[in-house]
Amino acid sequence: MRIKVINGNTFQPMTDNIGEVARSVAAPTTEIVAATPSAGPISIESFYDEYLAIPYILEEIIKDEAEFDAFVIACWGDPGIEAAREITSKPVVGIAEASMYVANMLGAKFGVVTVLERAHNLIEHTVAKVGLGPRCASIQCTSLSVLDTEELRDHACMVLEGAGRKAIAEGAEALALGCAGMSGLDIMLEAKLGVPVIDSVAAAVKMAESLVALGKRTSKVKTFQMPEPKEIRGYPEHMQSASFHA
Amino acid sequence: MRIKVINGNTFQPMTDNIGEVARSVAAPTTEIVAATPSAGPISIESFYDEYLAIPYILEEIIKDEAEFDAFVIACWGDPGIEAAREITSKPVVGIAEASMYVANMLGAKFGVVTVLERAHNLIEHTVAKVGLGPRCASIQCTSLSVLDTEELRDHACMVLEGAGRKAIAEGAEALALGCAGMSGLDIMLEAKLGVPVIDSVAAAVKMAESLVALGKRTSKVKTFQMPEPKEIRGYPEHMQSASFHA
Amino acid sequence: MRIKVINGNTFQPMTDNIGEVARSVAAPTTEIVAATPSAGPISIESFYDEYLAIPYILEEIIKDEAEFDAFVIACWGDPGIEAAREITSKPVVGIAEASMYVANMLGAKFGVVTVLERAHNLIEHTVAKVGLGPRCASIQCTSLSVLDTEELRDHACMVLEGAGRKAIAEGAEALALGCAGMSGLDIMLEAKLGVPVIDSVAAAVKMAESLVALGKRTSKVKTFQMPEPKEIRGYPEHMQSASFHA
Amino acid sequence: MRIKVINGNTFQPMTDNIGEVARSVAAPTTEIVAATPSAGPISIESFYDEYLAIPYILEEIIKDEAEFDAFVIACWGDPGIEAAREITSKPVVGIAEASMYVANMLGAKFGVVTVLERAHNLIEHTVAKVGLGPRCASIQCTSLSVLDTEELRDHACMVLEGAGRKAIAEGAEALALGCAGMSGLDIMLEAKLGVPVIDSVAAAVKMAESLVALGKRTSKVKTFQMPEPKEIRGYPEHMQSASFHA
Amino acid sequence: MRIKVINGNTFQPMTDNIGEVARSVAAPTTEIVAATPSAGPISIESFYDEYLAIPYILEEIIKDEAEFDAFVIACWGDPGIEAAREITSKPVVGIAEASMYVANMLGAKFGVVTVLERAHNLIEHTVAKVGLGPRCASIQCTSLSVLDTEELRDHACMVLEGAGRKAIAEGAEALALGCAGMSGLDIMLEAKLGVPVIDSVAAAVKMAESLVALGKRTSKVKTFQMPEPKEIRGYPEHMQSASFHA
Amino acid sequence: MRIKVINGNTFQPMTDNIGEVARSVAAPTTEIVAATPSAGPISIESFYDEYLAIPYILEEIIKDEAEFDAFVIACWGDPGIEAAREITSKPVVGIAEASMYVANMLGAKFGVVTVLERAHNLIEHTVAKVGLGPRCASIQCTSLSVLDTEELRDHACMVLEGAGRKAIAEGAEALALGCAGMSGLDIMLEAKLGVPVIDSVAAAVKMAESLVALGKRTSKVKTFQMPEPKEIRGYPEHMQSASFHA
Repeated sequence: MRIKVINGNTFQPMTDNIGEVARSVAAPTTEIVAATPSAGPISIESFYDEYLAIPYILEEIIKDEAEFDAFVIACWGDPGIEAAREITSKPVVGIAEASMYVANMLGAKFGVVTVLERAHNLIEHTVAKVGLGPRCASIQCTSLSVLDTEELRDHACMVLEGAGRKAIAEGAEALALGCAGMSGLDIMLEAKLGVPVIDSVAAAVKMAESLVALGKRTSKVKTFQMPEPKEIRGYPEHMQSASFHA
Repeated sequence: MRIKVINGNTFQPMTDNIGEVARSVAAPTTEIVAATPSAGPISIESFYDEYLAIPYILEEIIKDEAEFDAFVIACWGDPGIEAAREITSKPVVGIAEASMYVANMLGAKFGVVTVLERAHNLIEHTVAKVGLGPRCASIQCTSLSVLDTEELRDHACMVLEGAGRKAIAEGAEALALGCAGMSGLDIMLEAKLGVPVIDSVAAAVKMAESLVALGKRTSKVKTFQMPEPKEIRGYPEHMQSASFHA
Repeated sequence: MRIKVINGNTFQPMTDNIGEVARSVAAPTTEIVAATPSAGPISIESFYDEYLAIPYILEEIIKDEAEFDAFVIACWGDPGIEAAREITSKPVVGIAEASMYVANMLGAKFGVVTVLERAHNLIEHTVAKVGLGPRCASIQCTSLSVLDTEELRDHACMVLEGAGRKAIAEGAEALALGCAGMSGLDIMLEAKLGVPVIDSVAAAVKMAESLVALGKRTSKVKTFQMPEPKEIRGYPEHMQSASFHA
Repeated sequence: MRIKVINGNTFQPMTDNIGEVARSVAAPTTEIVAATPSAGPISIESFYDEYLAIPYILEEIIKDEAEFDAFVIACWGDPGIEAAREITSKPVVGIAEASMYVANMLGAKFGVVTVLERAHNLIEHTVAKVGLGPRCASIQCTSLSVLDTEELRDHACMVLEGAGRKAIAEGAEALALGCAGMSGLDIMLEAKLGVPVIDSVAAAVKMAESLVALGKRTSKVKTFQMPEPKEIRGYPEHMQSASFHA
Repeated sequence: MRIKVINGNTFQPMTDNIGEVARSVAAPTTEIVAATPSAGPISIESFYDEYLAIPYILEEIIKDEAEFDAFVIACWGDPGIEAAREITSKPVVGIAEASMYVANMLGAKFGVVTVLERAHNLIEHTVAKVGLGPRCASIQCTSLSVLDTEELRDHACMVLEGAGRKAIAEGAEALALGCAGMSGLDIMLEAKLGVPVIDSVAAAVKMAESLVALGKRTSKVKTFQMPEPKEIRGYPEHMQSASFHA
Repeated sequence: MRIKVINGNTFQPMTDNIGEVARSVAAPTTEIVAATPSAGPISIESFYDEYLAIPYILEEIIKDEAEFDAFVIACWGDPGIEAAREITSKPVVGIAEASMYVANMLGAKFGVVTVLERAHNLIEHTVAKVGLGPRCASIQCTSLSVLDTEELRDHACMVLEGAGRKAIAEGAEALALGCAGMSGLDIMLEAKLGVPVIDSVAAAVKMAESLVALGKRTSKVKTFQMPEPKEIRGYPEHMQSASFHA
């Protein structure tokens, strides 16, 4: 089985870390390819960042769709996932949804610890999009930028511990790490906090493997039909929806 | 007062129609500029279309931000509006939200009549994003493509009349036209259906004028702060977030 | 265009202030008439106050319905607005709903700062009635009576600043002033708090002007049909529903 | 124990029927007084009717508050009940809430059958006000006016049977009769429909008796404090809030 | 009228107390029988406790169903109540639902004060099951075990007073005592807190009497039909569903 | 890895089928043990059935907890799952939740097709318990009993096809098979309906494997702590909570 794990941003060290974590939990028979989009911001913190990243996250699915069995979008917020499910019938899993499903099986309520305060509404919106609002007890933003999570591991861990304690105080019994850059911090945080801490990338890899093992493909009856063929100005040939129907 | 009304797609005749409708309701002292993004799909029907359109909708705000008092995003779904509110502090109004506010002041429940069935979840998600889910009685999709609404006016009107009757039967007392391409059909539909039918572009122009007249600017305390300056690969200089801070 | 702005209470100085604020934002072509009901409490703080005020708020619409293009009910709580929409087909706008729509276009979540703690449930109920519960982050009551807001401007401003900070801490990014008596305090509070503060009367005037400019009238298909003609004991001739059908 | 059951409208035959039903279920030790307000519409169908009725429903509580142990507001919609709870600390029960509690103890979901279609939003709003929206499966309006329910008993019964079947088909397992005028029709409808049908007036009498037997009084900590004393123009002395504090 | 009040746990002193409280509020013509199940945990604090208790709570209904007019399940959480409503058509009332209905008629929002923190989700789930989530302002867990509430009355009262103050601070205007073991503490707490405090057992007895007086029986159309006759291994003859149909 | 898949009912042929399906999707390194509880109903259709089954579903976890890495509760409704999560810290997965997570990753909205109409509220309650109500478009009950699903495969398939079409018409894009007895029918239904159909047992096995592979254990901070040791009358020694602490 081959799974392509697509980093949402264009920061290669984060892609490397994502790939490493993904491989560490993947089944021996699963091949993981971690990819960095060809364009987009080096970190996703604002809605602006997210929207500029999405076309090139999608391009990563388009350009070698036939070579993979499933795709993971490795950015909490699951950017572009509805479109990803339109352009392929192979399973696409977002790390946000996957981490919430896992957390939901381990605690009566879950929490999310994440980056900058400005992301609070984006995170809340992501929880609502997945549909698990009724089980989310707390969203805790911090002073961490996305790159801090990657480059200042000890500091990030300390800050997330504090955020985790606040989430637990508000009723969370399991925590999702709300940024791909936090991948690999789960074990240390779990030891400090005494509750399950979910590495979102790891969770998504297992969900993707599961969908493939179950032989399931994305529904094409309504929302996730292939995009209608039409002219899309300013985008290369392989991103034209007409080419998907070829 | 100068308002830039940005068509979400790249179909120039639709931009022309949007501009015409906008000017027909604008105050005499308001100058309307209707713009077509430099890139993106010629119509927005799928999530894929929407996500590929957004960067270039945003570019329309960026490229002459200083010359306008407010911006209207003229595509039901209000694509990219959160990002638009980050990159300028001038008011940004989406036609979806504006049409819902107007409908909400005219009936106890409102409905939305719109294009293809595949858009149902996108429309539902838009209603939820604005926050008015509790007042929405019905969303009616049709067989109409976006370009049909523009090019087959009589047919579109007939189809929308049927959809409107279904929405009224489900409790809607006022209807929002859920596509910028439907602009200009409100009067005819209102005559046939006997309920207020809201031209979404027209509604948004009046909301934008109102915000300017009230002297209000977008909040910059949390979610809609300016994007952090950072490298955004593959995008031109003027779309780099660093340039906004210059 | 002529808009009648109806103060909910019978305190003439508040009507005067409401009129002044309304005129300050109205278009040059709009004539504002601010009216005090002929009966009712001098301030509305309890449900009892509100219910005794409503018949005479409605009377203000009835008695010269033909002479105005739109009506504004200038009391946060939008008292009697459903009935107002029954007895005229001309647009009726409540200051509560108008201020929420404006706030909703300026921040990702809004808050309301208002008078006495006893009003908390009334305010909450008003937000729910408009349908924007999902976007309301905070309702902050204070020690201010309605007349305090009018008569102790400096004190009111200081108290509202504190309430505003609490609302912002709870996630509000824009604030609605939840009492007509607070009209005129928005600029000062905005300067202190750094977030948009919405003068609810001003917002309602612009919404009313917008509805008139759009040529829209209240839906008469179901909820807001004219009241059935019937005997209404103890009320004067012009308030008999039969007279509306004459 | 003395309970005052207040008809919402001024139609004396309906008051008589309400009194009869109330007495038929009251404990032998309970004295029922059924009252008609001194002013207001002869039936409540529109919001306009409701708002003009409320001051005089409240007056019925005020004028001999000391002589009763509890009050029932006998109009589905529970008009003015929040204010009623302010002006006395004795229990006040609405027939809408009471019928919903009873229905909720007898079926997994309940339905409401009621009068004219225009009342649909008022009924829905009443369910939401009580807080039981999650358990309400269906609201069925009919062609019946309020007076029809009183004067055309056979016809009303037949129409309500049809409405009841629709509600059951939508998931209702117990039905509340959504108008005081329907009091007394429950047994016949129950026989035809095979599900519990709740006479709302009867339910309210038992709830009021229960609250008195439990020795409970309305909370005065926040929302339902006594109204502040203040001038209320145009209302008689005994309706001045100052007089409640005397 | 004969009402069987079934303690959820097997601690006889708690059954005795429940019986005493029930008798203290029952009508003179009502006979109360307080019963302890033949098996199950001596207190219910975990979901495990609750699920092991339920079959023997149900057995108390089964074994002399014909001899009673109504049943009360006296454990906050209303354990097994859906099944109880299947196996008899006589009214079954849970103390949780009854206390919420009573609280709901006395304050604009209610709160629940209860035992150990681990029960928080069970309590929240109970509120949702009844359908009154929108009116519940606060759930306050404490350090009290179920047996503490019974055996350490003074300590329990002191702890509950603190919990009550927190609930009031979060908006509760009336409080339900969230454990049958707390029965009898309502008066003392009411005196200290100044808000209505509902003895849940007492509330349920009055609700049960009311349903009997109204002549109502549980709906048998859908959810609460009699269980299909089938083999139920390991349970005695009288608990076989086939025997209910005999 | 060893996973114990516990049939909720005591019908051995259904256990056999469940085991077969589980093994067909399990990883080669996973050993599946399918177990039938020692007591309980031969099928679960009513709440009565469910509550009598739960103690013996839990016993299956208790009696050889040390020998397995994870447990699956194979009855849609996830009976007793909160208690199961208390009595072990090893992962416990319900087939209802698992099938919803899988469906949620394949369609914009999911539906559930299931057995008798009486189960509708139980199914709805299960969806709410998992927290995915906002994504559930349709619940379709049928004329099928649980044993029909097992013994009349062709008939069951035909009936489920009809139910599936109704669910799709109401907006479902992926379907969960809402009964363990339906396991194995997914492929045939998928072929007929053209949407993903989720075998709930298969889904749960993959979720359980995933949790084990991720090294996660149930949170013990609050809701799912071990039950307090106490006397549980009438249950055997190994089901006493004190023994879990030994």
